[in-house]
Amino acid sequence: MTLNPVLDRIDSDLDASINRLMELLRIKSISTDPAYAADCQTAADWLVADLQSFGIDASKRETPGHPMVVGHVPGDGPHVLFYGHYDVQPVDPLNLWHRDPFDPAIEDVDGVRMIRGRGASDDKGQLMTFVEACRAWKAVHGTLPCRITFFFEGEEETGSPSLVPFMKEFADELRADLALICDTSMVAPGVPSIASQLRGMLKEEFTLIGPKMDLHSGHYGGTALNPLHAISDIVSSFHDSTGRVSVEGFYEGVHPLPDELKRQWENCGFDEDDYLGSVGMSKAHGEEGFSTLELQWARPTLEVNGLWGGYNGKGSKTVIPSEAHCKITCRLVGDMEPDHVRAAVRKHVEDRLPQDASVRWDNDVDGAKAAVMNIARPEFEAARQALSDEWNREAVFVGMGGSIPIAGLFKDILGMDAMLIGFAQDDDRIHSPNEKYNVESFHKGTRSWARVLEALSRK
Amino acid sequence: MTLNPVLDRIDSDLDASINRLMELLRIKSISTDPAYAADCQTAADWLVADLQSFGIDASKRETPGHPMVVGHVPGDGPHVLFYGHYDVQPVDPLNLWHRDPFDPAIEDVDGVRMIRGRGASDDKGQLMTFVEACRAWKAVHGTLPCRITFFFEGEEETGSPSLVPFMKEFADELRADLALICDTSMVAPGVPSIASQLRGMLKEEFTLIGPKMDLHSGHYGGTALNPLHAISDIVSSFHDSTGRVSVEGFYEGVHPLPDELKRQWENCGFDEDDYLGSVGMSKAHGEEGFSTLELQWARPTLEVNGLWGGYNGKGSKTVIPSEAHCKITCRLVGDMEPDHVRAAVRKHVEDRLPQDASVRWDNDVDGAKAAVMNIARPEFEAARQALSDEWNREAVFVGMGGSIPIAGLFKDILGMDAMLIGFAQDDDRIHSPNEKYNVESFHKGTRSWARVLEALSRK
Repeated sequence: MTLNPVLDRIDSDLDASINRLMELLRIKSISTDPAYAADCQTAADWLVADLQSFGIDASKRETPGHPMVVGHVPGDGPHVLFYGHYDVQPVDPLNLWHRDPFDPAIEDVDGVRMIRGRGASDDKGQLMTFVEACRAWKAVHGTLPCRITFFFEGEEETGSPSLVPFMKEFADELRADLALICDTSMVAPGVPSIASQLRGMLKEEFTLIGPKMDLHSGHYGGTALNPLHAISDIVSSFHDSTGRVSVEGFYEGVHPLPDELKRQWENCGFDEDDYLGSVGMSKAHGEEGFSTLELQWARPTLEVNGLWGGYNGKGSKTVIPSEAHCKITCRLVGDMEPDHVRAAVRKHVEDRLPQDASVRWDNDVDGAKAAVMNIARPEFEAARQALSDEWNREAVFVGMGGSIPIAGLFKDILGMDAMLIGFAQDDDRIHSPNEKYNVESFHKGTRSWARVLEALSRK
Repeated sequence: MTLNPVLDRIDSDLDASINRLMELLRIKSISTDPAYAADCQTAADWLVADLQSFGIDASKRETPGHPMVVGHVPGDGPHVLFYGHYDVQPVDPLNLWHRDPFDPAIEDVDGVRMIRGRGASDDKGQLMTFVEACRAWKAVHGTLPCRITFFFEGEEETGSPSLVPFMKEFADELRADLALICDTSMVAPGVPSIASQLRGMLKEEFTLIGPKMDLHSGHYGGTALNPLHAISDIVSSFHDSTGRVSVEGFYEGVHPLPDELKRQWENCGFDEDDYLGSVGMSKAHGEEGFSTLELQWARPTLEVNGLWGGYNGKGSKTVIPSEAHCKITCRLVGDMEPDHVRAAVRKHVEDRLPQDASVRWDNDVDGAKAAVMNIARPEFEAARQALSDEWNREAVFVGMGGSIPIAGLFKDILGMDAMLIGFAQDDDRIHSPNEKYNVESFHKGTRSWARVLEALSRK
């Protein structure tokens, strides 16, 4: 089966491909907010119907949370599983979007065409690059070059609570030779990238409780414990003045970056000035003594993602609130154990509680270890070659600052290695207002998968 | 004119008096939230009509904000102005109320009858004690023992922006021999109290701005400035480990407590264990080395009343927010100058901004100096005697932790001393869910004013 007609078909079908993606983007599948549970069902139904429309045996599979979508293409070639997620992040603050996040459109910004909307990049646009590549193969050749299992989930943005039970229950159905994941970005515009290591993730949330009730700051100012002061002291204690996390035992399992990897990363095309400058930073603000790429890919973090308490409406309220709240995520590297980090963070907070304060832990979702890919497998070099051909630029093995816990789960539960190839760009504003996905990412991403499938079929 | 028939009339009219207060409590006059502007008008209208109903020449007076209510009773006796406010604090968090805050009712809690509802104590209930005392005088004697000016405002909970211009414009109309204010509490249950010093107030609010946009904590965790970390560092730096405010120059104008006052306060009936224990505190959390009463009445504070940024909904969002926000109030004592404190706080914050962060100051409302009353005036001793008669307990001169800027303004603008007598209790939960006012406070408060007016008429 020849590749070129498939690539031609992708080119000629691009407008229709974008229109299909737009349909999916209009579905408000925000997984973290129960108000959008029905939209998650709708997104799953849409994907089942779309896979079926070009002959894939696909079905929606219920879970205690949002449903999975599983599809099968039998065949003789190597067996790959493709994973993506159809759920998206919340859209607040809505007033910072310049259009309705769920009314996507193509915009032309300084000559760059981009698809604007929540999920355009993370992960609906990326997911659809693979689906469109398969559609083109089927249209041209009536079949696919590999045996393929499609596996889409709708809880990636909320820690995938249903994923492990589902993978365990349907392990035999899901197991393949290799997992393909499209949820990562390119290290620089036009530089095709295969992620060889990903940070893990631990989520925590706590409420610090002081006075029994909200108090008047005239009657109790200067005498009652103010939970907002206490929580600020604790958050401030998480890092020392060099940016290092001060939680005792936090760095257990963190290894120095091998010199070979350090050299590769120095030459991978990463544009530090653009990465920092585009978001208004004049320097990297993490631990001193590490390069910006090391900080992003190879160092652990403890970041507060939400902090609140007291009055935040218009005007003022002279209140000492009873409670203050903090949401945290830690990014994990190397052999850091999520449960160990959780215990260390909780001990750090509890050791610093002032007299008359108590803490309630509001999150018990399991964390995920960091993942390091097995790039010695021949499929990695084959894919690297296919990507280099498409982009006319040597593809590189890179790290990733984000967390895609499923890569580790495929290994742990199904014994499968994973290969992470993505076409997002760092300026895609994922998780932020005005998320976008370049049309080039979508188009050449689709072509890339067509090439990768062909390359894998020869392994 | 004899006093006893007036007191009898107050007793027999109590149920009707409470019903009138209930009508006023049902009006949602939350001054800080523009959504309730019409309710503030309704409250002013209600007061005008109520004063008119027993023959007071009262009118609503528009301002750029919420209206004033002014009423006049001519007469030959000494001329007093009575001040109160009809606006109330917001009611959030609503779920902590055990009844609708604007559907007041009398509740019996362990044998203590109390009026439950927003504003029951602060300040509608207190304001109505004076109105009811005047109504009883008029009903019994057809006249009042003093010349009286009623002056109610609707912006006390928002810093009274219209007050100074109004007082300046209508200075001749408002000027009296002495101002009476009912917006304070008793130092202990059953101990009648005249406030001889009040803390001043400065409100501040700032936004700390870091990255240009919200960022993904995977892509930028460990490299971008996190405004939630930066604002926690700053809030944490406001106090040292002994509870002292660390802002340079903050304590300028703070004087040691005179020994004589210290002795008086030690014997004023203040129940420290109840004050702290009733809100879950095992100790006072302010500056070390001061008694709890000194901390509450005679020491300045810097309290954070609101702190927020990032995601605070259900679930998690791996965001590094662009902005973090902080609302502050400072309580001022002695000769502290609000403008000086504002400049010192701003400098403290600006000096601690990390690289790549900026600050926006979101509040420019003028502060108010602390107020010290002129208790050498004979009216103070006369009122103290009248209160002692009503409560069968020696009335005391006390400090107050709260801020009632109008006391200072009456002096500065109208040249009037003020006398602050209130019947609230520390457990009234003002500014909190489940605010209440004891029926005894309301009843004996009304009787107290009847006695005070009679005593003043003899001066």
